[in-house]
Amino acid sequence: MPKVVDPEARRRELAESVWRVIRRDGLEHASVRNVAREAGLSMGSLRHYFATQSELLAFAMRLVHERVQRRIAALDLSGDPRQVVERALQEALPLDAERHAEMEVWLAFTARALVDPKLRALRDEGHSKLRELCRRCVEALARRPGLDVAAEAERLHALIDGLALHRVLDPATTTPQRVVELLAAHLDELAGQA
Amino acid sequence: MPKVVDPEARRRELAESVWRVIRRDGLEHASVRNVAREAGLSMGSLRHYFATQSELLAFAMRLVHERVQRRIAALDLSGDPRQVVERALQEALPLDAERHAEMEVWLAFTARALVDPKLRALRDEGHSKLRELCRRCVEALARRPGLDVAAEAERLHALIDGLALHRVLDPATTTPQRVVELLAAHLDELAGQA
Repeated sequence: MPKVVDPEARRRELAESVWRVIRRDGLEHASVRNVAREAGLSMGSLRHYFATQSELLAFAMRLVHERVQRRIAALDLSGDPRQVVERALQEALPLDAERHAEMEVWLAFTARALVDPKLRALRDEGHSKLRELCRRCVEALARRPGLDVAAEAERLHALIDGLALHRVLDPATTTPQRVVELLAAHLDELAGQA
Repeated sequence: MPKVVDPEARRRELAESVWRVIRRDGLEHASVRNVAREAGLSMGSLRHYFATQSELLAFAMRLVHERVQRRIAALDLSGDPRQVVERALQEALPLDAERHAEMEVWLAFTARALVDPKLRALRDEGHSKLRELCRRCVEALARRPGLDVAAEAERLHALIDGLALHRVLDPATTTPQRVVELLAAHLDELAGQA
């Protein structure tokens, strides 16, 4: 009699296997075969979840989005808007080991999506969600009359993606503490407190 | 008698072949074999220039750096510092087809360098050079007393890399014109003219 498996728990296990392979060996080694080996599953079992490498990659990228969204949804939104905004944006930045792994996976997928149209819709979805979060943060903070909300949201979004990139590329200089300070200074300026 | 070939011209040809393969098929297809086919050369001829795929990738990444540096070195530095700074930083942004190709190649290499230590030194070199350019631009512009030059250079650098990323990921919204406007607004703010 086959073992009864919680499909959600199995999906999480698979996701973790995909991430381990990508972080250790690079995206080009995250084949269905290698991920099955990493997860200790047969190719047949794995193919219940995804039939091709593109589906596997899409699966792992979707997980990054879900994790970020889940953390943002769990935020306590009460209190000073300046603090709420800062906490929300920090969830999109690689400030601990979990978010650092997400950023490395995101970077690998983003580069891959340049040449794999199937991945682009998912990449664009994450991009749009972060842009929308930035817009809401700017609206919550900025009270300067005549402020260009769209332009400030685009600048904030570019700053966040740039800081996330530098955190991964240059971790010795761009420490978590430094990212937090630079974001805080930018938000203070937006809120007119700098 | 073998044909006499200008080695510099041959290197440029090879670089263009590497770029075409990366942009069309992705970095994982930029093997020595595929690049030789693209360039119309034998594997043996190509191996005069690089023996392994890592050397080939390093070669193409070095070319991105050289092109950016050459354009910056060729700039006219006379005139208003605000305009000089803007022109210099624009050379690092994907505002035309040539710089757009460089950014796509840079992104592919950057993702690959996460798992290929041989590429990291080159990636770090480009990162340091752009950081240094940002620091010099902040020093040339910012006259506010007590301004934190290091922090402003890091913010400017993150903004530039974020805008470059968005130009490639979301070209319909992040048009060249929009990138120029957002950079100009940030520089005006730094110079205290906003």
